[in-house]
Amino acid sequence: MNLEVFILGCGGMMPLPRRHLTSVLLRREGDLLLFDCGEATQISLKKLNLRWKNISTIFISHTHADHVTGLPGILMLSSQVDRTEPLYIIGPPKIKEFVETSIKVLDMYINYDIIVKEITEPGVVMQGENFKVEAFPLEHTKPCFGYKLTEDQRPGIFHPEKAKELGIPMGALWSELQHGGTITLSDGRSVTPDMVLGQPRKGRKFSFVTDTLALPSISEEVKDSDLFICEGMFEEELAESAHEKKHMTAVEAANLAVSAGGIKKMGLIHYSPRYTDKELSLLLEQAQSIFPDTFLTRDGQTILLKYED
Amino acid sequence: MNLEVFILGCGGMMPLPRRHLTSVLLRREGDLLLFDCGEATQISLKKLNLRWKNISTIFISHTHADHVTGLPGILMLSSQVDRTEPLYIIGPPKIKEFVETSIKVLDMYINYDIIVKEITEPGVVMQGENFKVEAFPLEHTKPCFGYKLTEDQRPGIFHPEKAKELGIPMGALWSELQHGGTITLSDGRSVTPDMVLGQPRKGRKFSFVTDTLALPSISEEVKDSDLFICEGMFEEELAESAHEKKHMTAVEAANLAVSAGGIKKMGLIHYSPRYTDKELSLLLEQAQSIFPDTFLTRDGQTILLKYED
Repeated sequence: MNLEVFILGCGGMMPLPRRHLTSVLLRREGDLLLFDCGEATQISLKKLNLRWKNISTIFISHTHADHVTGLPGILMLSSQVDRTEPLYIIGPPKIKEFVETSIKVLDMYINYDIIVKEITEPGVVMQGENFKVEAFPLEHTKPCFGYKLTEDQRPGIFHPEKAKELGIPMGALWSELQHGGTITLSDGRSVTPDMVLGQPRKGRKFSFVTDTLALPSISEEVKDSDLFICEGMFEEELAESAHEKKHMTAVEAANLAVSAGGIKKMGLIHYSPRYTDKELSLLLEQAQSIFPDTFLTRDGQTILLKYED
Repeated sequence: MNLEVFILGCGGMMPLPRRHLTSVLLRREGDLLLFDCGEATQISLKKLNLRWKNISTIFISHTHADHVTGLPGILMLSSQVDRTEPLYIIGPPKIKEFVETSIKVLDMYINYDIIVKEITEPGVVMQGENFKVEAFPLEHTKPCFGYKLTEDQRPGIFHPEKAKELGIPMGALWSELQHGGTITLSDGRSVTPDMVLGQPRKGRKFSFVTDTLALPSISEEVKDSDLFICEGMFEEELAESAHEKKHMTAVEAANLAVSAGGIKKMGLIHYSPRYTDKELSLLLEQAQSIFPDTFLTRDGQTILLKYED
């Protein structure tokens, strides 16, 4: 099953022509999940030519303008297609007020259900089919959450030689065992999946963290991520000013990745507009000196997350 | 004095990668005036590399999402520069509520004065130096206004031969007369400007009309425009559906231009996203068959409005 991550925007604070505001789309089979939705997110979606109308859930880190002002456009767009499923919007307190006042003041025409769920405490905020999304607290100038998507464990690898040893005929019974079912053979013997399968295999993990101080607790949340998308707004020399604004540096992001452990790669995001595209290499170098598997996200980028085995 | 019009976006309803939402910037010496401000307007401004921080007034036609969702971003941006002058926002009822709730709900940091003026009746909404902007009512699914900017008359052409005949020495006295002042010569004679100047000359006129039925009253308002920017959302064959949504066709825009009289050129804008860039030629052909001086506005376009003489 494919798990693809699309970078819709990598910019922070103000959008630039080739750096729209921070927004990441995740596609897992039929599920399209959006993380943050700043101004021009709908344009980035169109550029990618995705079937954006199927976005099922939008996760908002916090209700600052550069993370939510693309929402009204997305809501309006969704009325232009035959949408039957509700759209879920999940975020910190005030997200409901933002959505509701936008619809009311702008007299938006909405022909489907919008369900806004405000996060009151950390934990599971979405239970999908074979995966879940959890929110965890960050520390910014207003309530802010990080998100992690974790797939359920997959059954272990099927060992045909073991099945043959047990005298199980190839076909439907093999398939039943592969999918975790217990079977009964014609001679009355019962075979459980663990008798023919290897150890359960880890599912994939994606995490999204932006607009926060580099809290040590973040490491625990994002450990073992196949992809850790993390704010890398400033160079290390600007750490003090970053902290004043409750932001982190690229180096701090890299330190979080190292102490988390098990992170396959980290994509920096939410760059300060003070850096030109070329100057972003400074952030990359600083982060890579600590966590080598760091890369710079760019608008339009697609990242495929593979199974470990 | 230069009068330049910049097309920041020519799209209607939803922005496309090369067709941002309807927004037009007008530059007249130090004055930067913005007409409508949909999502991604700030990106278009950056692409043009204009000194956008000096925008003095934003005129809003109506408070539908595709005409105002770029405002929070512009307001936020304006806090990033050393702005000392207030920013005026002028539009129909609800614009104040939109600006105020955006600032409140999104906790926007604003370090300058924003003065929102809701239009309660047609008339002058801005008095500039040697020009004024007037609002006039349109008919859409919610209160909507058109705008026209009219420059004051300029003094007539100076005739040096007349000045010489009257024995006025070249220099400061000529200049005084050219600028409309009355002078007294050393022999006691008084000379008024009309004795050395031709007829007062017409100032330039710009008008902006979008999201409306093609009311006959529009023609009266926009007559003699050097540039008439007008909605041309649909082809003629879709007139019925356009009217249901209180929009007009490109042909109707052309008919307004013809009956207005004195219009130098008309730029169509606010295209339906149903048309590809190529298909817009249909709208152009239909309008040009009625009003030949029609053109299609495009994102990034600059139009210089010249004096008649």
